[in-house]
Amino acid sequence: MSLVLDAAAQDLLFREARTANTFTDEPVSEEQVQAIYDLVKYAPTAMNAQPLRITFVRSPEARERLVGHMAEGNKAKTASAPLVAIVGYDTDWHEELPKVFPHAPGAKENFDNAAEVRHGMGSFNASLQIGYLIIAIRAAGLAAGPMAGYDAEGVNKDFFGDGAHKVLAVINIGRPGPDAWFPRSPRLEYDEVVTTV
Amino acid sequence: MSLVLDAAAQDLLFREARTANTFTDEPVSEEQVQAIYDLVKYAPTAMNAQPLRITFVRSPEARERLVGHMAEGNKAKTASAPLVAIVGYDTDWHEELPKVFPHAPGAKENFDNAAEVRHGMGSFNASLQIGYLIIAIRAAGLAAGPMAGYDAEGVNKDFFGDGAHKVLAVINIGRPGPDAWFPRSPRLEYDEVVTTV
Repeated sequence: MSLVLDAAAQDLLFREARTANTFTDEPVSEEQVQAIYDLVKYAPTAMNAQPLRITFVRSPEARERLVGHMAEGNKAKTASAPLVAIVGYDTDWHEELPKVFPHAPGAKENFDNAAEVRHGMGSFNASLQIGYLIIAIRAAGLAAGPMAGYDAEGVNKDFFGDGAHKVLAVINIGRPGPDAWFPRSPRLEYDEVVTTV
Repeated sequence: MSLVLDAAAQDLLFREARTANTFTDEPVSEEQVQAIYDLVKYAPTAMNAQPLRITFVRSPEARERLVGHMAEGNKAKTASAPLVAIVGYDTDWHEELPKVFPHAPGAKENFDNAAEVRHGMGSFNASLQIGYLIIAIRAAGLAAGPMAGYDAEGVNKDFFGDGAHKVLAVINIGRPGPDAWFPRSPRLEYDEVVTTV
């Protein structure tokens, strides 16, 4: 056995988990999302900076605004998912370094005048964290439906004003409903992805 | 219980897993990395494009070249890890769409003359996949040490020539050695990361 993780957990997180396109009405509770975050927070980021920021859209009014920014093919599922998360990064993540990277005093100051570096590191590390988040949502027995089809400028302006947060994805969360899944599309084989030198 | 995943698996993948700074001599086998990839490949990407590409550096000659591109503080662990992976994305990932997204004929052609979009989608989705990969390495009972401190242009030129692959991170992989861990740095709390609207 090459893996230590048991087969049921492998199935739950990877093999049997699918991107759901329909959901049941069962709500996703505050306790569930807190438990999910309590896993995600431990997974690694550069300088422990944790630039991921999450906006859970729970009110009907906010949901309606978000649906308005989604691409046509994503509107129905964004409207019907029990919970929708706008996930992105804080471009001012360096402000947290004195707290999250305390053994390197002065680290924050290196980024004060480096907005482009902050964007690059923030979006990359928050993207890793979105990967962790998708796995952690599955750890709660829920399906995650990440979507890239939306008006990013509209979402940023509408939900973050002229603030420092930038959207990277919108994720539908809930229990899969009827006909939730398309047939699984082909995966690239090991030899198509991996080179050994 | 808000999570379905059992507590031991939560510990293995998130709570007890740490970014190792030293490793034992125990090799990481080809079987292990194939089993790791067999999990990663199932996790979701936009249009199922799977842009992640992995180069495992196994030969002493290639390892020496890679160490030469690493930042000073990363050279020793990159030299001593049982296995090192250069992870990045294929900027020509759209070439695979006829195979991996077969129900949308013509999808590839939409990206033929959209190099900038391909870079954006490729780097974002491969970053999600690096998140999945770090969790899957932990599923094999191994520690992953992702590093961002290296000369990206040098790695690209040296390992990918003028090809289409671009590095996003370098990851040390192996069993943790003596004094593998710094003390855990503080995590941001739920209320510092999450907003509900």
